[in-house]
Amino acid sequence: MDAKIIKRRIKAIRYQLRKKRIKSLLVTKPANVTYITGFSGDDSWVLFTDRVVYLLTDSRYTEQAKSQCPACIIIERDKPIVEAVAELVKKLKSVRTITVEKSISLAVFEVLKKHVKARIKTVADIIESARCIKDKSELVAIAAASRIAAKALRQTFKYIKPGVTESELAGRLDFQIRKAGAANSFETIVAFGPNASRPHHQPTSGKLRKNDTVLIDFGVKHKGYCCDITRCFVVGRSNPFYMKVYDTVQQAQTAAIKMLKPGVAAKKVDAAAREVIRKRGFPVYGHGTGHGIGLEIHEVPVISAAGKAKLQPGMVFTIEPAVYIPRKLGIRIEDDVLITKTGCKILTDGILK
Amino acid sequence: MDAKIIKRRIKAIRYQLRKKRIKSLLVTKPANVTYITGFSGDDSWVLFTDRVVYLLTDSRYTEQAKSQCPACIIIERDKPIVEAVAELVKKLKSVRTITVEKSISLAVFEVLKKHVKARIKTVADIIESARCIKDKSELVAIAAASRIAAKALRQTFKYIKPGVTESELAGRLDFQIRKAGAANSFETIVAFGPNASRPHHQPTSGKLRKNDTVLIDFGVKHKGYCCDITRCFVVGRSNPFYMKVYDTVQQAQTAAIKMLKPGVAAKKVDAAAREVIRKRGFPVYGHGTGHGIGLEIHEVPVISAAGKAKLQPGMVFTIEPAVYIPRKLGIRIEDDVLITKTGCKILTDGILK
Repeated sequence: MDAKIIKRRIKAIRYQLRKKRIKSLLVTKPANVTYITGFSGDDSWVLFTDRVVYLLTDSRYTEQAKSQCPACIIIERDKPIVEAVAELVKKLKSVRTITVEKSISLAVFEVLKKHVKARIKTVADIIESARCIKDKSELVAIAAASRIAAKALRQTFKYIKPGVTESELAGRLDFQIRKAGAANSFETIVAFGPNASRPHHQPTSGKLRKNDTVLIDFGVKHKGYCCDITRCFVVGRSNPFYMKVYDTVQQAQTAAIKMLKPGVAAKKVDAAAREVIRKRGFPVYGHGTGHGIGLEIHEVPVISAAGKAKLQPGMVFTIEPAVYIPRKLGIRIEDDVLITKTGCKILTDGILK
Repeated sequence: MDAKIIKRRIKAIRYQLRKKRIKSLLVTKPANVTYITGFSGDDSWVLFTDRVVYLLTDSRYTEQAKSQCPACIIIERDKPIVEAVAELVKKLKSVRTITVEKSISLAVFEVLKKHVKARIKTVADIIESARCIKDKSELVAIAAASRIAAKALRQTFKYIKPGVTESELAGRLDFQIRKAGAANSFETIVAFGPNASRPHHQPTSGKLRKNDTVLIDFGVKHKGYCCDITRCFVVGRSNPFYMKVYDTVQQAQTAAIKMLKPGVAAKKVDAAAREVIRKRGFPVYGHGTGHGIGLEIHEVPVISAAGKAKLQPGMVFTIEPAVYIPRKLGIRIEDDVLITKTGCKILTDGILK
C-alpha cells in the first residue's frame, strides 16, 4: 500500500480521535487494521497513539508486515496478543488509558482488563466511519474487482448448459477469478430453478435441466477490496411468469438507483425498491436493499428500513432487490454503486444483465 | 442433520448447563449454533432454555432452517436480532436471566443489555468444550473431507509444472474441491520457492520455475466439517539443503505424532516437535504445532507451549511443524489426527507426502 495514502488515513483518524479526546486506540478488527496500516494478514492488532502506529503481529507475518506497512512500527510478538499489548503499554509510560473497539469480544475484553495496566475505555465505529467514504485508491481497487468479476462471469457462460451441477458451475467461476490473480469476496452462490428462493443457497450437486433458471451471486476480492454481484438467467426457453417477475425486480432496482444522490436517506432508497414490488403484487424480500462494500463484504451504510445513513459522495454499496417465491423461483439483481457529487455511478455495468 | 444426533448434543449441553446452574443460554457464535441445531446458515442465534431450543433466523433462511433443524422451534424475525431476542424473552415469562456466550462483541452485548428485560450473565466455552470431542457423525464428515482433499490434490498434480502461477494452481485445486461438491475450509495457500517462508502467504501471479519448490496448504469443508493439510514438493531436480530441512520437519512431525495418546499434555506434544528442529540447528517455527479442527478451521485444543489441554479420545487436530528461512525456503508438513482410546489415527494419510 502507498505510504502516502496510509499517512493520510492516519491523519484523518487522529483528527477524529482528538475530537473525542481519545489518546490511544487499540484496533482489533482485521479490516480496520488493514485500513490504517496496509497490512493484509490476520491475528494482528494496532495500538494507535498520538505519535506512533504500532502493529503487533507474529512471526508468521513479520516479513509481510515489513513490506506492507511503511508507516508503522512493527512488533513481533512471541506471546499471546493481549500480553504483547500489556507489555507495550507498560513500556510506553505516557499511555495511561487505552480505548478499545467495541467489536472486540467480551472474552478478549476481560483478558485485556486483567493484563493491561491502564484504564480501559470503549468506542465504536471510529474507523468504520472513515472507511465508509472511499478514497481514490479504494475506488480503483473496487472498479478493478468489478472488471475481473465481469470477465470471469463471461468466461463461465459456456459452462451454463444442461447437466452442469451448481457446485461445478460455482467452481468454474471461482477458477476464473483465481486465474485473474484475485479471490472470492464470499462463497459463490449458484442456484438452479426453485433453489434460488433461498437467498443464501449453498451450491449442491443438483444438475441444470433444459429450460431451467440460474441465479449466480458472487464477488471478487482484489487488492483487499470486494465487489458483489447477482445475475439471473434463463437457459433455453423462457417462461412468461419468470420474465414478469424479472422485469419487476429490474424496475425495483431502477427505482432505487434513481433515488441515489448525496443527502438522500438510505431508508428512502429501500422504500422505493420495495414499493415497486408491492405494487405489482409480488412478495417483498426480507433482507435489506443493499449494504456497503469495501475491505469487508458487508459494511456501512446499510440500505434498509432501519438504515439511518444519509448518502454521501464516496459511499459504495449494493442495490439488490429481489422476489422469492418458495418452491417456485428466486430472482435477485444486484449491482454496486458509488455516490458521486451529483448522483451515482454504477460500478458493475460491465456485467451483462 | 440427523435429529437423533442433535437431540443427543442438546441433552449433553443441558447437563453442562444444569451443572453450572444456567437456565437459558443465548448462543451467538455461528459454529455453536450449527452444532446444536444442524443449521448451516448465517445471522441466526439460538435461545436454549431448559425445555426448548429456539432458532431465531430471518426470511433468507427460514426454508433452510425448517429442513435442517427438526429439533428446534424456528422463529422468523423481521427486526434486528437483538430485538427479536428481547421479544422472545418477554413472551417466555419463566426466563428471568439469560446467559450469553463471551464470544459476543462488546457492542452487541451493550445493545442486548439495553433491550432485553432480564438479568444478563456471561459464560465461555460451554459448547466449544463439547465440540472438542467429536462424535461419530463428525468423524465421518472429517474423514470424507480428507478423502475429497486427497483426490483434489492428486487431480491437481498435472498442473504443477514450470510456468503455472501460484494463483492458477490454487484455482485448479479449488475447482477440483468444488467439483466434488465441497468447499474450501480456508483460502488455499500456494507458495513457490522462498515465498513459502511466509506461513500465511497469499498466492501471487508469480510463476513456477524449473527446479522450484512448492508449498500447498489447503483444506476441504464437507457437510460443515473441515480438514487442513500442508504438503511441500520439489519440481525437477531437488537440492540437498532442501531435502535435509524436509527430513527434519518430517522427523519433527513423527516425534509429535508418537506422543499422541489420551492423558498427554498438549504442550508436551508441541515441545517434542520443536526439540527435533532445535537439535538439528534449524530455526524453530513461531506458530503452534497444531490446532483443533471441526466445524471451524481453528478450534480447541491448541497444541502449543501455552496449550493447557490434556489429550482425550475423540479430539481431532492438526500436527504441523515447520522450518522457515526468510528469502530461502519454507517447509511445513501438516496432517490431521484423531486421538483414539490407545493412541491416535492419522486422518490424512491418503495424501501423499
